[in-house]
Parts: sequence; structure tokens; C-alpha cells
Amino acid sequence: MMSSDELRQLLINVNEGRLDVDAALDKLKTLPYEDIGFAKLDHHRALRKGFPEVVLCQGKTTEQIVEIMKKLGQSNNTVLATRAGREVFAAVRAELNDAVYSELARTIVVQRGRQPVPGGNVLVVTAGTADLPVAEEAAITAEVMGNQVRRCYDVGVAGIHRLFDKLDMFKWAQVVIVVAGMDGALASVVGGLVEQPVIAVPTSMGYGASFQGLSALLSMLNSCAPGVGVVNIDNGFGAATLANAITRLFYH
Amino acid sequence: MMSSDELRQLLINVNEGRLDVDAALDKLKTLPYEDIGFAKLDHHRALRKGFPEVVLCQGKTTEQIVEIMKKLGQSNNTVLATRAGREVFAAVRAELNDAVYSELARTIVVQRGRQPVPGGNVLVVTAGTADLPVAEEAAITAEVMGNQVRRCYDVGVAGIHRLFDKLDMFKWAQVVIVVAGMDGALASVVGGLVEQPVIAVPTSMGYGASFQGLSALLSMLNSCAPGVGVVNIDNGFGAATLANAITRLFYH
Amino acid sequence: MMSSDELRQLLINVNEGRLDVDAALDKLKTLPYEDIGFAKLDHHRALRKGFPEVVLCQGKTTEQIVEIMKKLGQSNNTVLATRAGREVFAAVRAELNDAVYSELARTIVVQRGRQPVPGGNVLVVTAGTADLPVAEEAAITAEVMGNQVRRCYDVGVAGIHRLFDKLDMFKWAQVVIVVAGMDGALASVVGGLVEQPVIAVPTSMGYGASFQGLSALLSMLNSCAPGVGVVNIDNGFGAATLANAITRLFYH
Amino acid sequence: MMSSDELRQLLINVNEGRLDVDAALDKLKTLPYEDIGFAKLDHHRALRKGFPEVVLCQGKTTEQIVEIMKKLGQSNNTVLATRAGREVFAAVRAELNDAVYSELARTIVVQRGRQPVPGGNVLVVTAGTADLPVAEEAAITAEVMGNQVRRCYDVGVAGIHRLFDKLDMFKWAQVVIVVAGMDGALASVVGGLVEQPVIAVPTSMGYGASFQGLSALLSMLNSCAPGVGVVNIDNGFGAATLANAITRLFYH
Amino acid sequence: MMSSDELRQLLINVNEGRLDVDAALDKLKTLPYEDIGFAKLDHHRALRKGFPEVVLCQGKTTEQIVEIMKKLGQSNNTVLATRAGREVFAAVRAELNDAVYSELARTIVVQRGRQPVPGGNVLVVTAGTADLPVAEEAAITAEVMGNQVRRCYDVGVAGIHRLFDKLDMFKWAQVVIVVAGMDGALASVVGGLVEQPVIAVPTSMGYGASFQGLSALLSMLNSCAPGVGVVNIDNGFGAATLANAITRLFYH
Amino acid sequence: MMSSDELRQLLINVNEGRLDVDAALDKLKTLPYEDIGFAKLDHHRALRKGFPEVVLCQGKTTEQIVEIMKKLGQSNNTVLATRAGREVFAAVRAELNDAVYSELARTIVVQRGRQPVPGGNVLVVTAGTADLPVAEEAAITAEVMGNQVRRCYDVGVAGIHRLFDKLDMFKWAQVVIVVAGMDGALASVVGGLVEQPVIAVPTSMGYGASFQGLSALLSMLNSCAPGVGVVNIDNGFGAATLANAITRLFYH
Amino acid sequence: MMSSDELRQLLINVNEGRLDVDAALDKLKTLPYEDIGFAKLDHHRALRKGFPEVVLCQGKTTEQIVEIMKKLGQSNNTVLATRAGREVFAAVRAELNDAVYSELARTIVVQRGRQPVPGGNVLVVTAGTADLPVAEEAAITAEVMGNQVRRCYDVGVAGIHRLFDKLDMFKWAQVVIVVAGMDGALASVVGGLVEQPVIAVPTSMGYGASFQGLSALLSMLNSCAPGVGVVNIDNGFGAATLANAITRLFYH
Amino acid sequence: MMSSDELRQLLINVNEGRLDVDAALDKLKTLPYEDIGFAKLDHHRALRKGFPEVVLCQGKTTEQIVEIMKKLGQSNNTVLATRAGREVFAAVRAELNDAVYSELARTIVVQRGRQPVPGGNVLVVTAGTADLPVAEEAAITAEVMGNQVRRCYDVGVAGIHRLFDKLDMFKWAQVVIVVAGMDGALASVVGGLVEQPVIAVPTSMGYGASFQGLSALLSMLNSCAPGVGVVNIDNGFGAATLANAITRLFYH
Repeated sequence: MMSSDELRQLLINVNEGRLDVDAALDKLKTLPYEDIGFAKLDHHRALRKGFPEVVLCQGKTTEQIVEIMKKLGQSNNTVLATRAGREVFAAVRAELNDAVYSELARTIVVQRGRQPVPGGNVLVVTAGTADLPVAEEAAITAEVMGNQVRRCYDVGVAGIHRLFDKLDMFKWAQVVIVVAGMDGALASVVGGLVEQPVIAVPTSMGYGASFQGLSALLSMLNSCAPGVGVVNIDNGFGAATLANAITRLFYH
Repeated sequence: MMSSDELRQLLINVNEGRLDVDAALDKLKTLPYEDIGFAKLDHHRALRKGFPEVVLCQGKTTEQIVEIMKKLGQSNNTVLATRAGREVFAAVRAELNDAVYSELARTIVVQRGRQPVPGGNVLVVTAGTADLPVAEEAAITAEVMGNQVRRCYDVGVAGIHRLFDKLDMFKWAQVVIVVAGMDGALASVVGGLVEQPVIAVPTSMGYGASFQGLSALLSMLNSCAPGVGVVNIDNGFGAATLANAITRLFYH
Repeated sequence: MMSSDELRQLLINVNEGRLDVDAALDKLKTLPYEDIGFAKLDHHRALRKGFPEVVLCQGKTTEQIVEIMKKLGQSNNTVLATRAGREVFAAVRAELNDAVYSELARTIVVQRGRQPVPGGNVLVVTAGTADLPVAEEAAITAEVMGNQVRRCYDVGVAGIHRLFDKLDMFKWAQVVIVVAGMDGALASVVGGLVEQPVIAVPTSMGYGASFQGLSALLSMLNSCAPGVGVVNIDNGFGAATLANAITRLFYH
Repeated sequence: MMSSDELRQLLINVNEGRLDVDAALDKLKTLPYEDIGFAKLDHHRALRKGFPEVVLCQGKTTEQIVEIMKKLGQSNNTVLATRAGREVFAAVRAELNDAVYSELARTIVVQRGRQPVPGGNVLVVTAGTADLPVAEEAAITAEVMGNQVRRCYDVGVAGIHRLFDKLDMFKWAQVVIVVAGMDGALASVVGGLVEQPVIAVPTSMGYGASFQGLSALLSMLNSCAPGVGVVNIDNGFGAATLANAITRLFYH
Repeated sequence: MMSSDELRQLLINVNEGRLDVDAALDKLKTLPYEDIGFAKLDHHRALRKGFPEVVLCQGKTTEQIVEIMKKLGQSNNTVLATRAGREVFAAVRAELNDAVYSELARTIVVQRGRQPVPGGNVLVVTAGTADLPVAEEAAITAEVMGNQVRRCYDVGVAGIHRLFDKLDMFKWAQVVIVVAGMDGALASVVGGLVEQPVIAVPTSMGYGASFQGLSALLSMLNSCAPGVGVVNIDNGFGAATLANAITRLFYH
Repeated sequence: MMSSDELRQLLINVNEGRLDVDAALDKLKTLPYEDIGFAKLDHHRALRKGFPEVVLCQGKTTEQIVEIMKKLGQSNNTVLATRAGREVFAAVRAELNDAVYSELARTIVVQRGRQPVPGGNVLVVTAGTADLPVAEEAAITAEVMGNQVRRCYDVGVAGIHRLFDKLDMFKWAQVVIVVAGMDGALASVVGGLVEQPVIAVPTSMGYGASFQGLSALLSMLNSCAPGVGVVNIDNGFGAATLANAITRLFYH
Repeated sequence: MMSSDELRQLLINVNEGRLDVDAALDKLKTLPYEDIGFAKLDHHRALRKGFPEVVLCQGKTTEQIVEIMKKLGQSNNTVLATRAGREVFAAVRAELNDAVYSELARTIVVQRGRQPVPGGNVLVVTAGTADLPVAEEAAITAEVMGNQVRRCYDVGVAGIHRLFDKLDMFKWAQVVIVVAGMDGALASVVGGLVEQPVIAVPTSMGYGASFQGLSALLSMLNSCAPGVGVVNIDNGFGAATLANAITRLFYH
Repeated sequence: MMSSDELRQLLINVNEGRLDVDAALDKLKTLPYEDIGFAKLDHHRALRKGFPEVVLCQGKTTEQIVEIMKKLGQSNNTVLATRAGREVFAAVRAELNDAVYSELARTIVVQRGRQPVPGGNVLVVTAGTADLPVAEEAAITAEVMGNQVRRCYDVGVAGIHRLFDKLDMFKWAQVVIVVAGMDGALASVVGGLVEQPVIAVPTSMGYGASFQGLSALLSMLNSCAPGVGVVNIDNGFGAATLANAITRLFYH
């Protein structure tokens, strides 16, 4: 990444004849994006930080996914694929024999390169068992990004005593991810109890007037407990990425 | 109500000449609705049970409301007017000087006739202070219908400890009416705690993605705690009427 | 369940040395949820009242369902599973040979333990034949919870005379569950006729502008007959649970 | 409408010199729209049939409305203005002193020219008193178009016995216009009772989940009674125009 | 159908001893629906008028459908089944060998009894070829009810010249049914051209922002041409029933 | 197109005997649609301009599609079929052996007749790889209509540097088609950068709160960059047709 | 604007010592946005092309608007303000006495600088008179940007003959802007008739199920006539900007 | 706050007679909420951390607000009131003369007690000037909670170069709050550029298909840049609270 200092050096090099004009021009032409500096340049960042390359399988053919993962695997990066069906994993495994599949989360992980630096403490909470796939996508993503993850599943407000039994977990966490469908009420209850950042993930679980997650989404956006950030319905990956953006403020 | 026996007697009366054909015909003509018997014939029921006549002021002119209430007041019935503005009350008061107004609930009550028989125990709970108008409409309606009402306001899940401090009230109640806007999560939490029937009233309080109560409505319909019945947004009157239909199973 | 008296006794036991501090501490640590007292503690309640354990099959794998039902069946509780496909039943039956399936309602019932105490009178009404699956889920749930259930199907307002022919059933009922899709008008008509609590269940039957039950849902929420509580689309189970919460006010 | 034969004759007339080129050209120029024949050419139709000119005031300034009505009034046509406020009427009355205003319906009628031929029998039914403005717009429109109109107001299904008392009116009608808000159930009940065409007008009356008439609209579209045609929310004028299109099949 | 006169006669018969009380009681017991008089009593009407019995197959099992149709077929009535799949037809045909299937309309017709009296002229128009299934459901329904039906397909406004070529058909019709998806603009164009009643049927054809027919539905409800009645999305049957209710005003 | 002058001349020709009545009649009969002149008369336009005939396969059976394409192929026109599945192509290929299929775009092209005149420069841009099918439908449509097409795929704003690397392509284009799902933000970014017309195509890619493309659609309609025209969700064909309408202003 | 050539020259200047490193660094630092080259840099573009500065008044205070317009007016640029109330104009006029107001369009124009080069031919069409404010915003915007504008108002499809009478206008236009509310059908009809690009502007005119323009918006997006681009509801300004982007392809 | 250690001590005190049973019982009774420990007990937290008490004025009367703020002001806490109109401020100021009002943000701040410890770096970014009120609510809230706040306003993607000019600000921030209406695209662009947590606040600015912020909300939820958390429409306060929950992970 070209810093302001590097830019100065480049010009000095031109000035002092160590770099001819055309070579400098080539470098500068790519500048509008290479030089932004704070941008998420995935392959650079991955090498430095163990941050994974990510492939969203939905909307891609198996052939496309395999090709992309092979290419990414050739660099020494960890690769995470989300929303991957079993048959996609079979095809990937034929090429990358260290690929690991979670049937519940529908994720493929190819662990490579240096281990990520020790990350933050992320707690993933679900209201019900039907929310597990989304929760596991969040949990595995957070782990691959280098965080410690604890799971606290099936503690929905219909049996709120189950939640109060897990207070130690909540104290341990730096970020809490709440995964819930239907009434989404767990996000408000957790948001009212903890002082840490809460990331709410509505799920499409439910039926009827849940309208594929709309009910939980609206409920979470209207949480009467402030300090709750919401991501897209079923977006466990996004929640973990936001959690990681928070925890890495400490460690990176 | 005209029972099968009464119908037989009517025919016998015709047969034996005690009732002439035209008189019988008149009685029978009205049969499809007068004889249904269990129907809510408002003026009859009101006389028997102290149940109020009800006037929904919304969508009516002040003149219409005054005229209706004067007419109802001439019978010895209690009258309840809902969604009544202050200027409507002033006009009604000019005619019925025992009319009582609740500015918060926007209700007018003209108490008449026999006192209602002692009714059930109805608890009205709100998540926030902004839900008070709807809650008071429910509370006053339930009271006018002869129920004991207790109020437990501002116990939303963002400060769920406030709720747990009111356990005695919940044990006392036969029916709990939960009034909440925004995330509507209080309905699920209460529904998960109590075994009594819970009636949830979404309110249009809030802003943005609350969409005038849609958020709370969907959340309540999707309550993961079963045993919660939902009424229309801001419909405190409807909730109290349903609560009364439940409590009067005991007393009437 | 630890009552206030029991709590006092525990402290006295500590005071008088009959209980050491660590044992008391263990008991008190679980207090925030064991001691709430009025909470629905499913296994306790089931043992006392014949109330069933309930498993919502939707969103769970067959393996998960079988495992849960085996475990619940080991206690002497009645178990009710809803939204269970035929293949789920086959797998459950292989483990619990007294499991009974309703193909129409998609419920599995494993009747165990003491018979429930005689419950209330619940009438289930449908507008059309396509509403039967939801109605049967409601009816079977209410029965398993110990209520007398009568069915009055296919009496939609397009042929309203069919409804008027069933007046005796309506008089018998303590609670009426109305199951209807499309225009949902039956809920308003029934709500206008009877004085008992009415629980309306919109169904996703229909096509086009029924929008998977939204039409019936909105219609029922806007019922011009007060005293109607609405549950989620297709939620026969929820309607029966609310009905049972009402009838058990008499019997428990 | 100019038939193929008439077109041939016109050309023969030109060919044989009985019609000069310019006169023929004039006729042919208007052909794409004047000659379509069955088109609603307002001024022609109005002169022939007493059908009114119609001005929708909404979205027009008072000045525009006055100018249009003055111009229309100069021909000997009857003019109907809908959605006209009181101040609009005052301005119109200053120019057309035979203009008649209905405050309830918000219509202005300037009766002119020949009386319309005797029309059909149109019954306008409402569920509640808040539906009266829309119902009156329908009734007055139907009358101005030459129909006999009877009104049957406040017979909503919450008190369905009120409906059954009006059977004679229903038998009299050739077309029934049902005006209802909230649950819109009256349209289904009426549609299930009568064999005549039913035109349903949802109204924006109500609150909360009525969503400004959406609830009634969806309910009416999903009427389980076939033979119900629906018009836009609050569109009393449109309902009357459709009713008139039906009744004039007899008389014109 | 028992008229007021017949009711009087029944009472006179009782009075004069020609009918004993129990026999009269039996007759009167059925009165609330048999005696309404103008109600659509399907089997009676069918016998008198050749009007078909109708079975909506959607939401029923094949077994249920076959059983219903066999029973209806035992009376001498014509039976119409809508939304019937090919496998449903095969099962019906095995029992009723004169059943006729339309694969396009997904209707089964069993023609029985007297021929219907000559009915009205109904024109069915579609915007595109994808609207044909709904149009054919309308056309076949109208025919079975005894109407003359003409079809004018694929005349959408994107090639509006195709519409203008069919003027004779429009003149012939007493009622026009317009079937269109997507923009639904054809209903407005036809409504602006003809003076006869127009029944608009939105279809779920299209993709994206057609939202399964919502786009066409809203467009048709907002038709700037008054005199257009709208039925549910894809409801060809309902449109034909309304058309028949109109045309039978002439013939019955 | 027949102008007023031409119409006059026709009549003069008849008048002076240079054209007989039947020949004139033939010309005039087609006038309401053949003579409108600026109408899209597909077969004429196709012959003159190489513009293709288009068949939307969705909603048609394979048999219908084959029949239509055979008929169109008999004239010497180029034919484009959109939304064609692989099995449709197989059936078409059996009849038209020069048919070419794009599996990605789901288009069939039968190139015939004269080559289109050189057309405009159309750039098709996508946010992600999942948008490729819609983008290819647009690209192939634009090419078949005679435009030069360049593709700039996978330059979504999450990696906005990729976009800035393609400036030359943007300068080359006369029209830019932006294809994006989910947040649809690429349309605003491109619209803010370029001065050429931008046509935005929302796609149904995504999940959860993308609501099948609604999110991208609303985002694009609300683009804070003016000069963006939006077409239906997934409507690559429509975008290309609009682009072609723009570029042909230069060349035709 | 820094071109590739200028960038090379800058480096040569550094190389040859004519520019020192710090000065070059300063220039390069601003490069990511000054050098994009084809970006709409409003003040530059305005000076070169007579293109106006634009101020959207909605959401700004009168004070803010006046301050912005004064500042813009100090350069010699033409300024266009949209959605400006009468009181905003009064305040602007006090500062800029050559400001011109259109009450109908709610626009303020301050004409300055060089006259724009002669632009394209833009036709603005409306369905009704209530659409005029949006149409005039479009027309005035297009004119200020240097286009010839013709208006063709009140030609909605309910009286489609009015449209056919204006064929010359349609031939004259290079771009057609169609402004329509309610059913939005005019966009489809025009799109089916003309070959030029059509820009559709839904308006919020109407009531009930028009849902503030949603009905027209969906209808236009689903236009069965391809080649129609849609802008936001009531966005006359956006339509004109897109039209101008098209016409300026010819002239700039 | 009662820790596990304190609970043990309490029991020891009882055991050793230093605390009698009734006193212990009183303490334990309040345990379910006083002892949760990590709960946001506002007054305690405020005293310890300078965190403000917050009053949401919307939905409360001026009298209620003044009473609450007086009471809160009597403790030595800082108080923040949001959505406060000018007249509310006047009434508050009469009681608390150190209250400070922001007309833009509609906030009242009463600064009291100890200064908050130095907090994090929060950057607030807006797309346009109309988003300022929401942005200022966020900025002032974050400041009152003890954060450093920088503002970067009016850098929407329609002029994306303005954004790139502010790179230093983005590098400085620990959390970025993006406030945008209409297309909400700025959230995606910022989310794609920075690695820090991004909190997106949709605003209700805009018109037409922005649907009071729905468009921006959906766009932000579907951001193709992961790591973006969304709060309710116009909820600047909520965004700042979440930002503060993140930054205080460092400092508290």
C-alpha cells in the first residue's frame, strides 16, 4: 500500500533519475485505488492478518466456486465459503483435501497460512434451535477471523429463565450476536441487560406473519434497548464480520 | 331468546286460535335476528348486565356523537365513548352533565343504571409511558364493564428488572393486557412468564421502521410464547372487550 | 417452585445451621428463574396437570425431533408434536410405538401419565374445507390439553345459512376458535353473534391477493366485532393454547 | 361508428364527385377517435343520455374547477363534481347559482338539460356510519346518472340481524353497492346472500392495521362469495359508474 | 323458496289443522336459511337454471374432490371444477366418464341436466398469451353458466393497434372481462373505450416488480376509466360469475 | 407513416380515378394501426433495420415457443428468445439448426437477414458475479440490435477501486447499463461519475431483506445521482431495448 | 482536469527540476478525485456548458436556500431550485432580483451566463391535469438545460382518442417524458407507439390504492412495452436530467 | 451491585447472626434485578461513568418531560433529551437554567457531575444536508457520552470525489456513523473503504419511493460491504449509543 511517504519517495526517485517517467506513470495510474490505503484489499490483508478470503456460494455455479477456491487456495490464504451446499463441498474437497465442512452452518473452511493473532470474545446467542444454521455461520466466521467464540443457544424469551442462567457468558463477551426469528424479542431483552455492543441477526425461521424474517427484522430495528445494530435477515456472516471489526480495534 | 320450545308453543297458539296468523307472522318475520338469542343485542344486554353502550367517536361529527349519546342516555344505560376529543366532550357535557372525561384515554363515561356485578381481575401493562393513552382506554373500558383493573406501566424489556418487581400483580390477574409499541417484545416476555390469557395491543408509538405499529403488531403475532391473542393497533377498547368476555365466563 | 415462604425457610435453615452456606448458595444461584414462581416450567407443569410437552417440528431435522421426543417420552409426560410430516412420524413411531399421527393436522400425540382434569368447552369453526388442517391442529391441541372440543366446519359466510343452523354448538362453547382464510369474514360474523371470547386464526389458504394469509389476518385484526383476539397465520396450536389458558381459569 | 360499408360509401362518394376531397378529408381525419363509435365521447353522450359531465376536484385548484364547470355549464349538460370542499362549492355557486352541494358526499351537482331516462334500481349499503361520505358519493352519482337509489346504512356484520331486516330492499335492487371499511366483511355476507351483481367499495375508515383501507380492500378481493367486483378505496363514484354501466344495459 | 306468502299459508294451514305442529316445526326450523329466499341455494338454483355446482380443487385432496364430484354428479346437476390438475381429472374421469377437461384452463366440466337458457354475451380479452389460463377459466365458467363467449386474446397495449382491429367484438359484448398481468394497462384502455361493464382480472404473470400480480391489481383498481370492477388476482372464475350475475339480469 | 398530405392525395387519386375504391379501401382499412406510422410494427421494422423479433419464453409452453420461432424464422428476420431454458433450446434447435444458445443469459438467437447497421456503444456493468445472467441478457439483446457492447463485471462498491480502474470503458460508452442486486448502490456511484444516460437494472440476487430485488429497486429509484432510469427487476432485455432506443437516435 | 498527458508532463517537470517534490506531491494528493476526468464537477461543467447549478429545496431551511443561491449566483452560473415554496421564492427574490418563479412547478430559475447551446427535442406528456406540477418541473428543468420542450397534457388512456390526435408532437420528439399517476397506463401506451426513448414519471396523484404513487410506479416498471425507463415518484427533475443526458449525446 | 461474593457474605451474615432473616429476605427479594450485575442500571451507571440519563420526548407531554428532567437534574447526573421541540426546551429552561438546546438536533443537554472519561473517536458522515438533524442527534449523543466526534457532512455518492478528500478523518475514527436517506448508498461505499465498524442510520429524507426511509433502510441492510450494522430510521441516538458501546470497550 502506497503511503504518503512512499508517494514522496516515488517523486524523489523520478526527480533523481532513479525511476523513469513511464515507469512512474504506470505506478501512478493505478494509484486511485492502490493508494487509498485504508481500503479492504483482501489478498494483502489476508496475508498480513490471517483474515480469510470469503466466497458467497449463493448465486454461483459449483464450477465457478471450485475455480475460485482453487485459485484462492494457491495463495497461502485461509478461505471461507458460505451458503455452500453439500454437493458444492464434495466438489471443493476433490480439489482441496483440507477443506472442512459444517453441514449445519453450510460453510467450507480451508485453513491456511499463519494462525490469526488472538482475537476478541464473541458470544453467539439464539432464541431457538431453528436459528442454529445462521448462528453457526456467524460463529464459524468469527472463529476463522481469529476470535474466541462461545455459543449460548435456545434461550428465547418464552423461557426467559434459561437466559438468566448464562450470565457468566454475557460478562465474558466483548460483543454479543443475537440470532432470533419470529418476534425477535431476544435482541431487546439482551440489549437491555448488557452494556457491550449487541449485533442482532433476524432469521427467516417461522411462518405466517413472520413474513420470512420481516417480523424479527422490524422488531430488532425498533428495539427499545439502544445500542443494538441490525444486519440482514439470516446474515450470520455479516454479523460476525461486524463483530470482528469491533474486536480487532483491540488487537490489530 | 326464542327456543325450540317457544317456537312450538307459538305454533300451538296459532293452532288453538290464541294467536292469529298475522300476529304470528310478525313474530316469525323478525325471527332470524331477534330470536338468535345469544346475540349481542346491545340495549337488552346493557339493561340486564350493566354492560355499556359504546360510541366510537372517530369518523363521526360532534353533532352526530352528541345526538347518539343523548339518545342512549335517555335509556338508563351506562354509555362509553372512545376516541373522543376534548371539544367532543365539551359538547357532550353540555347535554349530559354527569359525563366524565379522561383526557389521557380520550374516553367519555356516562355511568348509569345498576352497578355492574363484580367482575374479573384485569391487569394492564405497558412497555413505556407513550403507550399510556391506549392502556388507559383499555383500563377504563374494562372498569366500565365491571372489572377490577390494576395498572403496571413502563415496564418494558429494556429495563426488564422493573417487570420482575411486579410479580404480585401478575399473580393477581385473571387476564393480562400488554400494551407496547416499537419492538412489542414485552408481550413475548409476559407471555413466557404467566399462565393466564395474555391480550397484546400493539401501539403506533415509535418512528421509522415501527411503521405506525406494524413492527409491534408483527412481533406480537409471532410471539414465541403461545397463548397470546392480538388485537388491532391502538385498540385498547377491543382488548378490554376481549378481556371482559373472558372474565365474564366466571361471573355471568 | 420456591415460594416466598420457602425462601424464608431456606434462610432460617442457614441461620440455624441446618444448611451450610455453599449448599444455600447453590440453591440461590438458580433462584432468578426457579423462583419466579408463576413461570411456565414445562416439565413441572406437565407432571402436575397433564399439560403436554410440545415440539414444533418445523425447522428441526428428523433426527433432532426423534431425539427430543424420546427424551420427553422417558418422563411420563404427554408429548405433542406439531407440523410433523409423515416421514417424521414414521421415525418417531419406530421409537415410541404409542405415538398417534393425524395426517390432516400433521400432529403426533404420545399420550402418557395421568389423564388431564376435565377441561373447558372449545368450539372450532372453519369457513371452508381447505382450513381443516389448521383447525385440526387447534382441535387436537385443545383436546390434548384436556378440553372438550366440538368441530363446526365449512360454515363460511358465502353460505351464511349454514352457520345459523349450528346455534346450539355456539351456546355450548366457552371459547370459539374461528379458522378462516381469504376474506376472514367469518371471524367478524361469529364475533358479532356470540358473547364468549373468540380466537381468530387466519389461514394461508387462497391465492392472489390473499397474500398467504395477509388478507385474512388484516380482516380479523380489523373485525368490527370487538372481543376477537387474533393469532398468527396458520397457528392452530397457538389458538388452542390461548383457548386453554382461558378455560383453565375455571378448572385449575 | 363508421363501418367498413360506410367507409366504402364515403370513398365512392368521393370517386363519383358527390363529396369533395376536403370534406372527405375532414371526416377521415377524425376517424381514429371520432369514428371508433362506442367510445365514451363525453359531450355527445351527455347530450343524448343525460349522462353528466364529471369533474374530479382533487388535485385541481379552485380556479381551475370554477373555470371547467362554467365551461361545461354553458353547454346544456348536467355537471357532477366530486371531492369538492365547501370553499370550492362557494366559488362554483358564485358562477352557477343552480349548483347544489352535498356536504356529506362532497359533491356538487348542476342539473341541466333533459331528464335522464328512467334507470335501474341501485341499492347502496354501508357497514357503519363512518362509511356514509363514500356511500353518498356513490348514491348521488348513481342518481345523477338516472338510477333509482335506495340507501341501507349501518348494517355491518357486528350486528348482522340489522342486515336481515332489510331483505325487501335487496330483492328490489338490480345492483348492490356495498361500502365498508375495516374488515370489509359485509361485502362477503351480502355477496353470499344475493344473486345480483355486487360492487364492493372499501373505505379508508378505521385505524391501525386497516392501513387506510388496505384491510377492507384485500378482504373484498378475497371474498369467498363469487360475483363481487371491487373498486378503489373510497371510490364511491367509480362504483356508481359501474353500477350504471350495468343498469343501462336494460334501458339504453 | 319460501316467500312471505308461503309463510302465511303455512301458518294458516296450522291454524286450520291441515298441518300439524310438528310438521310445521320441521319446516320452520330450516327457515333461517331455506326461507331467506334470495339466497344462492346451490342445488335448487342449479336444478332450475342449469347453473353449475362448483368445486374449487385447490386445497382439497384428490380423494375429497372425487367424492364431492361423485355426489354432485348423482343429482342431475352440471358440475364445474376449477384449478384441477391433470391427475385430479384422471381420478374424476374414472368415476364420471362424461367429465371433460381443459388443460389450459385447468377446469373439469360434467355437463348434466337441462341446457341452460340462452344467456348473455361475454367477451374475454387478454393482454398476452401468458394470460390464457386465467382467461380460459373465465370463458369456460361463463359458458357453463349459459353465456355466449367470444375470446379476443393477445391484444395488449404494447401493440394497441391489435386492439382497434377487434371493434366488432366489443360492440357485440354485454360484459367485457379483461385479463392482464404486469402493467394491467389493458383494463384502463378498454374501460376508456367501451360503455359496457368491464371486469378486470389481474394475473400473476410477469416477474420482478409485478410482485405476483400486485402491480396489475393496483393498476386496475386505479384505472382512470371509471366503470371497471376488479376481482382477485388470477380469479377467472370470479370474473365470470360476476359477468353472469350481470347478464342474467336480462334473462332470468 | 401516412401524413395528412398523403391522405389527401389518396382521396384525390380516388376522385380522379387513379385508384379504385377497393384498393383505397384496403389502404384505409389498415389505417387505424398500419398507418399510425411511428408504431413499432415488428416485422416491418425488423426487415428495414435488422431489429429482431423477440419471444419472451416465460409463461409459454415449449410447443408454443417452437411454433412461434419457426414461423418467425420463415421470414428472413433475426429472432431473439429470452428466458429460455435449456430444454426449450433443444426443441428450438431441432427445428432451426442455426439457433445459438447462451446458457448464462438464457437467450436463443437466430441470426438472419441483413446485418444491422453499426450501432451505438453500450457498456454493461455489474456489481457482482451473481448479476451475470441479467447482464448477459442485456448485453446479448443490445448486440443483436446492432450495438457494440463492452462488459465490465464485478465492480461493486464494496471494492470501489475495481470500478475506478475501468475509466476508459466508461468514457467509451454512449449508454451505461448498471446491473446490481442487494443495495443497488453501484447505480448511484456510476450515475454520480458519468454524464451519459445510465439505465439501472435491479436484480433479484440476494436474500433476506433484499426481498427479491425490492431493495435494489427502491435504492435505484432513489438514486441521489439524477439521470438514472430504472427498469423492472431482472429485466436485462428491457434495459437493452431502452439503450438501443437511445443509441439509434444517432444511427437510424 | 488532469489527463494522462498532464500526468506525464507533471512527472517530466519533476524529473527535469521544473517542479519540486512537495509541490508535485500536493498536486498528486488531490488526484483521486480531480483527475477522474469524466466526473460531473458541477461548477466546471456549468461554466463550459450552461448547465445549471441545482438546489433541491426540500429538507433545507429558507435561510440555507438563500445562502446557497446567493453564493451560486455570484459565479456567473444559471441556478435552478426545485420544490421551492412561494415563501422561499420571496426570500430568494429579495437577494436575486432576476429570479423567476413557476408556482405550478415550484421552481426558481436564475438565468445567467452564456446561453446553452441548442439542445434536443423533449416532449412532456401527462395523463391528467393533476399531473401538471410534476410535468412542469420536468419541462422547466429540460428547458433550463437547453432543450426545446413541447407539452402535451391531459391525454390519459381513459380518453385515448385525445392521444392519437397529437401524433405530430410524438414524431418531433427525441425523448418523450410521460407523467402519470393512478394506473400509469399512459406510459405503456406511449411506449407501445413510439420508437424513441420513453422516460416514465409516476406521480403521487390519486387516492386509496394508488398508495401515493406506488400503483403508477409498479405499473410503469412492468410496462409491457420495452424501452421505458422509470424514475422516482414525482421526480420531474430526474426525468428531465435523464432526457438531457440523452439529447446532449447529439449536441455536446 | 451484588456479586456472587456478596451473596455468599450475606448468607454467612445470616448464618452468624449478624443479619436477621427478615432483613436478608428483603435483600434477596430484590435480587432478581438488583443482582443481575451487568444490567444497565441507569442512575448507578450514570454516577460512576458520566453516562447521561436520557429522555425521549416524543410521545410525552411537555409537563411530563419537565417533571422527569427536574427529577433527574436533582441527582448530579447529566441529562440528555432527544426529539425535543423548541417549546419543550423553553419549558425545561425555565426550570433548569443550564440546559442547552440544539435546534438542528432537537436535543437538550444538561451537563452535570464529573466530566466523562476521555472516550473514543467517532466520525459522523452524511450523504446530504437534509440528513443533518439526524447526524447532529448522533454527534451530540456521542459527545455527551464522552466521545471525540468529528463531522463529515454532505459527501454523498453523487459526488463521490468529496468523500475521497476526507481520508484522514476516516483513518482517525474508531467507529464511523453513516447517515443517509434516499438510496443509502453511502453506507455501502464507506463500508467498502474502511475496516472499522460502520453504523448505518437510514433517514426519512426524500420523497416518493423512498417511502419515509424504507428505501435507505433496505439498501443499508443489503450492503454488499459486510461489517455494517443498521439502526432504525432517523435513530441518531441509537447509532451513537451503539458507537459508544464499542468505544467504551477500550476506555472503561
